[in-house]
Amino acid sequence: MEKYELVIIGGSAAGIQAAMCAQKHHGLKDILVIRMEEKAMVPCGIPYIYGTLGAVEKNIMPDKLLGEAKLKIGEAVSIDRKGKTVKLKDGSEVGYNKLVIATGSNPMQPPIPGIDKKGVWFAWKNTDYLEELAKAIDGVGDIVVIGGGFIGLEFADECRKRGHRITVVELLEHCLQLVCSTDLCLRAEEALKETGINIITGNGVKAINGTDKATSVTLQSGEQIPCDMVIIGIGVVPNVKLAKDAGLDIGPTGGIKVDEFQRTTDPNIFAVGDCAEKYSFFNGLPVPVRLASVATREAKIAAANLYQPQWRNIGTIGVFATVMGDSAMAMAGLTDTKAKELGYDVVVGEAQAASKHPGTMPEAHPMRVSLAFDRRSGKILGGCACCTHAVGEIANIIAAAIVNGMTMEQIAMFPMGTHPWLTASPLAYQFTDAASNALHKVKGVTQVA
Amino acid sequence: MEKYELVIIGGSAAGIQAAMCAQKHHGLKDILVIRMEEKAMVPCGIPYIYGTLGAVEKNIMPDKLLGEAKLKIGEAVSIDRKGKTVKLKDGSEVGYNKLVIATGSNPMQPPIPGIDKKGVWFAWKNTDYLEELAKAIDGVGDIVVIGGGFIGLEFADECRKRGHRITVVELLEHCLQLVCSTDLCLRAEEALKETGINIITGNGVKAINGTDKATSVTLQSGEQIPCDMVIIGIGVVPNVKLAKDAGLDIGPTGGIKVDEFQRTTDPNIFAVGDCAEKYSFFNGLPVPVRLASVATREAKIAAANLYQPQWRNIGTIGVFATVMGDSAMAMAGLTDTKAKELGYDVVVGEAQAASKHPGTMPEAHPMRVSLAFDRRSGKILGGCACCTHAVGEIANIIAAAIVNGMTMEQIAMFPMGTHPWLTASPLAYQFTDAASNALHKVKGVTQVA
Repeated sequence: MEKYELVIIGGSAAGIQAAMCAQKHHGLKDILVIRMEEKAMVPCGIPYIYGTLGAVEKNIMPDKLLGEAKLKIGEAVSIDRKGKTVKLKDGSEVGYNKLVIATGSNPMQPPIPGIDKKGVWFAWKNTDYLEELAKAIDGVGDIVVIGGGFIGLEFADECRKRGHRITVVELLEHCLQLVCSTDLCLRAEEALKETGINIITGNGVKAINGTDKATSVTLQSGEQIPCDMVIIGIGVVPNVKLAKDAGLDIGPTGGIKVDEFQRTTDPNIFAVGDCAEKYSFFNGLPVPVRLASVATREAKIAAANLYQPQWRNIGTIGVFATVMGDSAMAMAGLTDTKAKELGYDVVVGEAQAASKHPGTMPEAHPMRVSLAFDRRSGKILGGCACCTHAVGEIANIIAAAIVNGMTMEQIAMFPMGTHPWLTASPLAYQFTDAASNALHKVKGVTQVA
Repeated sequence: MEKYELVIIGGSAAGIQAAMCAQKHHGLKDILVIRMEEKAMVPCGIPYIYGTLGAVEKNIMPDKLLGEAKLKIGEAVSIDRKGKTVKLKDGSEVGYNKLVIATGSNPMQPPIPGIDKKGVWFAWKNTDYLEELAKAIDGVGDIVVIGGGFIGLEFADECRKRGHRITVVELLEHCLQLVCSTDLCLRAEEALKETGINIITGNGVKAINGTDKATSVTLQSGEQIPCDMVIIGIGVVPNVKLAKDAGLDIGPTGGIKVDEFQRTTDPNIFAVGDCAEKYSFFNGLPVPVRLASVATREAKIAAANLYQPQWRNIGTIGVFATVMGDSAMAMAGLTDTKAKELGYDVVVGEAQAASKHPGTMPEAHPMRVSLAFDRRSGKILGGCACCTHAVGEIANIIAAAIVNGMTMEQIAMFPMGTHPWLTASPLAYQFTDAASNALHKVKGVTQVA
């Protein structure tokens, strides 16, 4: 039986990162990565295969990142924790000293009648499946996308780019509602409607119709929408069967229970990425945030902690970004709605200005930042930015403020840098001015003179 | 005699910001701004008048920002601190209760023989002068730019865009040497050379030649460069005459001495912006960093502190950004060279990856971040980013890390967000990976197994 110092089950973003960091951090070379797929998909790139990228093979994570770690293509079917071995589907076994479970997640399959018909597709992270989808999509005209979260909307926008007629159906009142403030949800919907996408919110799909192949969907409202294809993107389910069967604890959101060092209930087994439970930075409670950026971060932490606790996970903040039509939008931390639900007394500050300065610079567009603060402590809880491509990194500035517990005053005085081509004017820099705006809402003005 | 609760001398970025914030913070309406110019130039936009913007009137700061503050066009010639009045050139006087000096800076005029010839120009923040320059520049072919700092290089690049043949002469070994790490200096020089600009470094101008009008410059090396125009951009001199004449203390870099609340040696007088002394965030010593972003921040702080100390200036970090040809570059905090000069034991970490992910996304370009850390404390001292437009905000992420004293480990574990269109891959996010790189240089690897 082969034996490795470190075995990693799963070779997508989290598994690859764990292998990379175990090498960097500990100089480990005796590493085996077990992956079901020949090739790993860039998870966030999947919708882009069907528009911008144009091909599955343009969305592959390079295995050279694995460095000296060995890669075995196969399916792990059980873990013997006492014997410290992993059994594969082909009957072989590998021994481990340390084990990292990075088995990811699978697309959620809602109990909609007709979901098993032909022409109903999911965002499986599987090259063959996605190749099949690429072939299938070529011939179709009308597509119904079920789910108005990131994955659904990105699929919708990308398929629209190749000329398909798209209808998005979202059960909640707004698309992106679980992660975005309402104004951003509205902006996303508007941006997609401007491109010709039909958006239906506050309405679910009751049934997928068709004799053999999906030809229409029936909404909860009774409306029937004809279509040639259905794409379902309503979230993911952690892939924890292996861990559960091995007797590891599972957390309330369905992920493998881990401590702040990414250790499972077995001290030699770590879990990272979509299959692992996540805990909120704000209150330590489990949160169902499943993102590649969170996954890779957990993988770094697990790798550092293989032999002794070194890095502590400060918790999951949730930093999201997307591009809808021409509008980019990003958010970090709690939405104002979520913050209120958690009992915070929330103050929101907002600021909008041209993305370049002076506003007469070419391609200067309005850019808006809104920040949510806790009135009692003054500390930042979250924020959003819209609608230029700079928002991807602005969300990371907001994240930096959150992890450091910056207050309204500290952000209002933040020593930002500005440049005509790259940012708003120093007189109207949105991140600092949104904090000033919140501050003035809280403090009122000091009446003088 | 008119009397105002608050008088602000100077109505450029800092003066306008002080007027805005005094209104927001204290509800003050009784404010007078005294400005020499009818119209205020966007200071960082000045080079762009001569290329991208194409006209002086496209680079004007809107006076509507002043809100309810009154604007008086005139020149303050003296301050009577005892009588609490400001005298203007036209003989009129205005009384104040609180005074903010925001008189800015003037272009530095080096003692080069021939500097007073026709055809020698500076970046005066004066619409009439800049209009004259716009007219003068139309007819010329060859321009020599003296000074390879931001202002000089931006003038060079913009004039190049309208078809002039440009030579930049920089006294130091590299352009941008005082604010950038050497690799960024080289990248800037390379980017400009690629556009056809002639760059001469490690060489000064000994004389500007011509009978009446500049027709050539003689370098210290003896070389003579023919030209139709000379533009000098070698820095600025704080405009402190008014303050000095009024008996206020001046600091070692020539700015008006202020405390951490932006108060001068007179408790009713504040100084902000280019005319005020700045102190390093890192060691509290005076630093000659004169930027609009620093100026507006000081104005916010002064406005908050008018009646009692409220906001403390944590010191100047220095966050710069620019675009040279197609390359954007940005930096925050100390360069590795400067940090070593200050006695830090410096570790530099670097990371490069495609600016989008997968790297097959359209217009994905290499983007590099390098971060300098103090080996002893592990804390970040500074960083640079190059070469996509995202670097403007990445420098602000670095600045956020600096003000919060983040360590290598904290940044390596930073919970960044990523997106295919907007950032690098979560497996290769440059800001976090540069910290990991530094960490591995410091810690080596834990040998195990």
